[in-house]
Amino acid sequence: MAEYFKNISKIQYEGTGSTNPLAFHHYNPTEVILGKTMAEHLRFASCYWHNFCWDGSDVFGQGVFGRPWLQAGDEMQRAKEKANVAFEFFSKLNAPYYCFHDADVAPGGNNLKEYVNNFAEITDVLEQKQAETGMKLLWGTANLFSHPRYAGGAITSPDPEVFAYGAAQVFNAMNATKRLGGENYVLWGGREGYETLLNTDLRQEREQLGRFMQMVVEHKNKIGFKGALLIEPKPQEPTKHQYDYDSATVYGFLKQFGLENEYKVNIEANHATLAGHSFHHEVATAVSLGIFGSLDANRGDAQLGWDTDQFPNDVPELTLVMYEILKSGGFTTGGMNFDCKLRRQSSDPADMFHGHIGGMDHLALALRKAAAILEKDFLADFVKQRYAGWSGNLGKAIQNGEHSLATLAEFAVANNLQPKHVSGQQELLENKVNRVLFG
Amino acid sequence: MAEYFKNISKIQYEGTGSTNPLAFHHYNPTEVILGKTMAEHLRFASCYWHNFCWDGSDVFGQGVFGRPWLQAGDEMQRAKEKANVAFEFFSKLNAPYYCFHDADVAPGGNNLKEYVNNFAEITDVLEQKQAETGMKLLWGTANLFSHPRYAGGAITSPDPEVFAYGAAQVFNAMNATKRLGGENYVLWGGREGYETLLNTDLRQEREQLGRFMQMVVEHKNKIGFKGALLIEPKPQEPTKHQYDYDSATVYGFLKQFGLENEYKVNIEANHATLAGHSFHHEVATAVSLGIFGSLDANRGDAQLGWDTDQFPNDVPELTLVMYEILKSGGFTTGGMNFDCKLRRQSSDPADMFHGHIGGMDHLALALRKAAAILEKDFLADFVKQRYAGWSGNLGKAIQNGEHSLATLAEFAVANNLQPKHVSGQQELLENKVNRVLFG
Amino acid sequence: MAEYFKNISKIQYEGTGSTNPLAFHHYNPTEVILGKTMAEHLRFASCYWHNFCWDGSDVFGQGVFGRPWLQAGDEMQRAKEKANVAFEFFSKLNAPYYCFHDADVAPGGNNLKEYVNNFAEITDVLEQKQAETGMKLLWGTANLFSHPRYAGGAITSPDPEVFAYGAAQVFNAMNATKRLGGENYVLWGGREGYETLLNTDLRQEREQLGRFMQMVVEHKNKIGFKGALLIEPKPQEPTKHQYDYDSATVYGFLKQFGLENEYKVNIEANHATLAGHSFHHEVATAVSLGIFGSLDANRGDAQLGWDTDQFPNDVPELTLVMYEILKSGGFTTGGMNFDCKLRRQSSDPADMFHGHIGGMDHLALALRKAAAILEKDFLADFVKQRYAGWSGNLGKAIQNGEHSLATLAEFAVANNLQPKHVSGQQELLENKVNRVLFG
Amino acid sequence: MAEYFKNISKIQYEGTGSTNPLAFHHYNPTEVILGKTMAEHLRFASCYWHNFCWDGSDVFGQGVFGRPWLQAGDEMQRAKEKANVAFEFFSKLNAPYYCFHDADVAPGGNNLKEYVNNFAEITDVLEQKQAETGMKLLWGTANLFSHPRYAGGAITSPDPEVFAYGAAQVFNAMNATKRLGGENYVLWGGREGYETLLNTDLRQEREQLGRFMQMVVEHKNKIGFKGALLIEPKPQEPTKHQYDYDSATVYGFLKQFGLENEYKVNIEANHATLAGHSFHHEVATAVSLGIFGSLDANRGDAQLGWDTDQFPNDVPELTLVMYEILKSGGFTTGGMNFDCKLRRQSSDPADMFHGHIGGMDHLALALRKAAAILEKDFLADFVKQRYAGWSGNLGKAIQNGEHSLATLAEFAVANNLQPKHVSGQQELLENKVNRVLFG
Repeated sequence: MAEYFKNISKIQYEGTGSTNPLAFHHYNPTEVILGKTMAEHLRFASCYWHNFCWDGSDVFGQGVFGRPWLQAGDEMQRAKEKANVAFEFFSKLNAPYYCFHDADVAPGGNNLKEYVNNFAEITDVLEQKQAETGMKLLWGTANLFSHPRYAGGAITSPDPEVFAYGAAQVFNAMNATKRLGGENYVLWGGREGYETLLNTDLRQEREQLGRFMQMVVEHKNKIGFKGALLIEPKPQEPTKHQYDYDSATVYGFLKQFGLENEYKVNIEANHATLAGHSFHHEVATAVSLGIFGSLDANRGDAQLGWDTDQFPNDVPELTLVMYEILKSGGFTTGGMNFDCKLRRQSSDPADMFHGHIGGMDHLALALRKAAAILEKDFLADFVKQRYAGWSGNLGKAIQNGEHSLATLAEFAVANNLQPKHVSGQQELLENKVNRVLFG
Repeated sequence: MAEYFKNISKIQYEGTGSTNPLAFHHYNPTEVILGKTMAEHLRFASCYWHNFCWDGSDVFGQGVFGRPWLQAGDEMQRAKEKANVAFEFFSKLNAPYYCFHDADVAPGGNNLKEYVNNFAEITDVLEQKQAETGMKLLWGTANLFSHPRYAGGAITSPDPEVFAYGAAQVFNAMNATKRLGGENYVLWGGREGYETLLNTDLRQEREQLGRFMQMVVEHKNKIGFKGALLIEPKPQEPTKHQYDYDSATVYGFLKQFGLENEYKVNIEANHATLAGHSFHHEVATAVSLGIFGSLDANRGDAQLGWDTDQFPNDVPELTLVMYEILKSGGFTTGGMNFDCKLRRQSSDPADMFHGHIGGMDHLALALRKAAAILEKDFLADFVKQRYAGWSGNLGKAIQNGEHSLATLAEFAVANNLQPKHVSGQQELLENKVNRVLFG
Repeated sequence: MAEYFKNISKIQYEGTGSTNPLAFHHYNPTEVILGKTMAEHLRFASCYWHNFCWDGSDVFGQGVFGRPWLQAGDEMQRAKEKANVAFEFFSKLNAPYYCFHDADVAPGGNNLKEYVNNFAEITDVLEQKQAETGMKLLWGTANLFSHPRYAGGAITSPDPEVFAYGAAQVFNAMNATKRLGGENYVLWGGREGYETLLNTDLRQEREQLGRFMQMVVEHKNKIGFKGALLIEPKPQEPTKHQYDYDSATVYGFLKQFGLENEYKVNIEANHATLAGHSFHHEVATAVSLGIFGSLDANRGDAQLGWDTDQFPNDVPELTLVMYEILKSGGFTTGGMNFDCKLRRQSSDPADMFHGHIGGMDHLALALRKAAAILEKDFLADFVKQRYAGWSGNLGKAIQNGEHSLATLAEFAVANNLQPKHVSGQQELLENKVNRVLFG
Repeated sequence: MAEYFKNISKIQYEGTGSTNPLAFHHYNPTEVILGKTMAEHLRFASCYWHNFCWDGSDVFGQGVFGRPWLQAGDEMQRAKEKANVAFEFFSKLNAPYYCFHDADVAPGGNNLKEYVNNFAEITDVLEQKQAETGMKLLWGTANLFSHPRYAGGAITSPDPEVFAYGAAQVFNAMNATKRLGGENYVLWGGREGYETLLNTDLRQEREQLGRFMQMVVEHKNKIGFKGALLIEPKPQEPTKHQYDYDSATVYGFLKQFGLENEYKVNIEANHATLAGHSFHHEVATAVSLGIFGSLDANRGDAQLGWDTDQFPNDVPELTLVMYEILKSGGFTTGGMNFDCKLRRQSSDPADMFHGHIGGMDHLALALRKAAAILEKDFLADFVKQRYAGWSGNLGKAIQNGEHSLATLAEFAVANNLQPKHVSGQQELLENKVNRVLFG
């Protein structure tokens, strides 16, 4: 099989002095920061789907990339060519992990039996490719949204046979993920939601999804899969409303079905912004709820209302995200998957490298800057001092349940409390962060 | 005390033939629909704040209404004049309920003791006014957002003395609500959130709020208040991010602190749209989670990103909301409060009546139309038939926990399942709804 | 060629008493309202593209409709089958007009020569179909956005050969439109904009587009095409920013190139809402600027940030749009094209009828209601009285240029002007409109 | 008059090594970059209104700042105290310019005569303060939006007496601006728009505004004011829809009234984002239309739908804005006004300095980075090469009007044109920009 990315060799760290666009200027995998290498902190992964399953089409236009392995032909043959190109790219990119959906790697076939066989055959191929290249699997997942059978929902379909079909895919995808040493398994419910409330039974669909998520936990335990189960929140697109709207919504869902210790969230930056939140907010919220798991690092376009899945390049925002992650102890099984698409006009094969190199460098920069904030600790210090009252007598008594509304009201009157507002110093803190960012 | 709304007498139902703008054309309080009077179904309330505490200022401009009772003067005297005008309006409007914040009705004073005394004195006035007019209190609440002490949060303030001050207000407001026969008590946390994550401890603030909400339940039980406790979700404004973002978020919060059976939500239409949801969605979601309580019936402007609190006039949307409420059994303690503001240019005293009459007529129309949909039952019929598979063998087995991923995968392969998508018929259902709406 | 829409015959007006979903309840083509038939007022058209060129795919999923004429096969043969089905639908729908892009009706071929031949051959077919069915062409247009050559813009491409290719298509599409008796010719520049300012020369692209639009006028005059030239504003999607953002932006563009009397706008409802405007605003703005031409009647989803192109069903909003159109004298060459897509889940052939019948009925209702507002004339009366001062001495003097800032300042001081705000009565007017809408 | 900002002396440049939060780390006024000092490039101004006329109130809460000069008292005395504090701040901040509305500096009085006298007296004070401190006036303007008389519009009011009152204010404000050596005069029409189309005559209001803008030009010429006239676009807030929506809309308006050479735009960053554009887009668009004038440098919150007017801190975006300005030749009469508000929680007097110091440093950084991009010129080089075809034969012939649609179509067929898409290299360009930003 011929090389596709000709004249591109394994991407190396060359430092900020380099003018080579096909080198890392900030990501130095073996450099140690706060006791771990950058590679261990960032756990980069690149994805199969946007890179190798998409030819540059959009709603108003045809594919522009002309990828050879996406042309018509014998499907299994094409799948193997795709695996070759994907692993060529993964290896040259120098990120340790990759991710896939079942449907990305193997043809769905004409029925489930064919699906199972195709997927099993390609799983062998992937296993061999991993062995050859040293690539590792960050997570696997099943595509329960592209096939017409899922148009009205997969797990939340009105038809239990659709649920069963989806469950069969997840069964196979979990097993394959385990076999390939995957460190997590992801659920993204792109069709689990409604197009119109007029034809929808919200309570019924919620029950279906809850039961399914319990089944996934049961299967995980049965097969001894040690990785984390991850839910990927998204508010809409393709579906008008999706049940996994954002981290706080997912948390409520997990609590309802007793699953809050079984799942974590895989937060995608662009899904955060579509839900009306900053990326930073979603990560900080998940951390505060104890359900932070992993990241899909991309970004949206602030003027557009759909998932543009662009390569991340907003270093200031990424720095605050990394700061939250470092403060929380860093990733355990999770990592940074690039769920990013090239812009449709970026039709050169090298553009795929430019996108990923930029993303990796920007996140590496964010790691360096976040570590610098953490070392100076001016944010944590300010927060600690701001809430100091809650370590005092009154604060402790309230938190320990020693006060009722009545005793507090009495206390407040008796002591003629006249608390004064204290400046939150937002501008000063923002300046301090920028001084770390820009020297 | 002189009459303020001169030449306006009690608003009467005159039917659709009337051309009198100061009459109801659809709201006929004693007319029976589906076994209850319209008054019993709709449980209309009007509010103190936008009507009697706001003089038509906005961020860029001064007051334009020139309300006499809002001019400088002795504060307690002004509060009594305000009560007079408010009850003149409430009585003439012919809605059975009203709602208030502590700070709407009584001056806050220079310290808590003065606050307590002022509020007690005005509670006497309100009690007397209720007796004179027959008005009832739908709910009371405390204003923990206007005073400078709450600039950094009330219950979630970094300062426990601010928490204590807020708790003292809630203690008094709950007691007053009970004394006045209030049917619910509402919590709206307009400052419970963050302006910037840089200075905020999300976990700490969440714990404060959780403990506070437990204290409110304890106090309710202690004083034997029989009404419902209601949380009013809002995503932002005045605060950048508020913890009670939307119904699903509130549900997760309640579950975390074991409060999901103690609180219901008071859904405000414009808060729903600011959160990126339709009003219909928020009501349907709350119903499906078992936490639907009451409504603040207003609307936003689809092109504006702040709370415009306009009088509701979108009859098609209101009809779907009423349909959800009727399907769920109707209001129990909750009702329809108009948390609506006049447009700033609507400076005639009569405009206050036009706004409310319109709102009441539009909701009455929505009730009539929703009842017509329910009687024909074509929506429920379609939904029932659409999910029929879940009453079959496979559907029941899945829901009853008889299947694992493995057995489902086996079943699906063994039976060579090939489920086909079935039309969701959204256009047809939309047409049918419009045929009810427009004959 | 077999009938595709089996068991559906020509849709008839049956009135509001009918329960037949495949009948018009409000659209009665021959009924006279304000001196014209409903058909003459509304000038309905249905479109080729979403109906006959789209198989129900979306960004995350494959086609679900299974349209036979979109399957692989001889392209010209498929194009003829498509024309058969399209005209079967158009005829049965009972709307007088249709619309198409060159690429909808004929295959693009491997080069321009093939394109020209294919398009000419299908133009013959369309001419014959029109003769057989009595269908008329509301407008034609050229697709300069789907082919990969247009990925970086067509008329605003950095490559003048791409401009030339696009010009060749427009040349052929204008000629075909003239030959088929088209009453307008439309330009929609879906790729005329930028993805990133980093690689874009705004001034250069604007000059290209300006020159092109002059060429279109010159060609129109040369071939004696009597129809109107229409620009269809859209702010974004597929392109991040499109130069024809909204009506006001298009007006400025036309003025820059001296074209304000040569083009009118074809306003699409969902494009209005994506630009941050109401549909009503865009129509009223275009009318006030003298550039209103035609409508693409659809709607967006208020919670979604992309073009959902749903069938219109918001009768209150449509009524205000119809009111503006009636006030401005009604359509001349323009009309109401349904640029609407079925929801992806609406996979029954009959759903295509439900969508269009609903749209036509809702617009017919809007026409009836708008005529009722116009007959009572309470809106125009209120506006006239509100601005009465501008017919007085001071108002006329200002407008006639008799005042300078200095003379006005002197006049204002000398007369001690103290103008008072007068209520805008928004709530009352909204109530009055709803009383017409709902009786 | 006592010093208000105690313990704060004139802010000095201390370089990036400094840890003093009350020093500039990047803004070095006398440092020369690309042939001009930083002070000459950036032309910083701070504003009267948010700093000295706002006490920290918001829609839901009272003032929190407790500014002494905003307390009740003799209005003229308070105005003089305010001027003292303002000039103390302006001088200490070390920005060369300030800006004001008439209503910021002087009380409006009970009638126009009092207004004229008050304003004249305070103009004397300002003149003296300027002489004492060396401060210069970047621009003046009149507040035609806060007083109740303007609730329904000022220049676009239905009442010509309101127009006359507004004209009298503008007359006085232009004269004062000239006398104080102001370098520009600004028009912001916060109430020039509509709340509801139901009561609005768009065409009439547009004519009023057009005539007024001509009067302003006439007056400028009459008094020999040499500064630029600036329009400040804003899409909404306080008014639902404002006629000066964005730069492209303003351009069309200017063209309609023959004013495109008389006015330029004063672009406010947060107004850009409220209009659905990036700040960069609005600046680049104005430059490409030849109407770029000045900046109000602030920012919005990406999750909030109202004007938050925060201090700018997004250095990457500011860099692209500075790059456009440098490319266009830099400011002439315009400059960088901080139309920024403290966050309401930032209640320390020093916070006002932190906000402005941050803003100045971030823009100074942006200037440095933009100059670095310009020196390397990789963006301009890429753009030049990308559009190279338009300097070739075909491109020139098209632009020179030598081609018609017919000749182009013939040319394209004859030469069998098959233009291929060329990569736009967005990811690579984004990486290159970030490498300049972060080294």
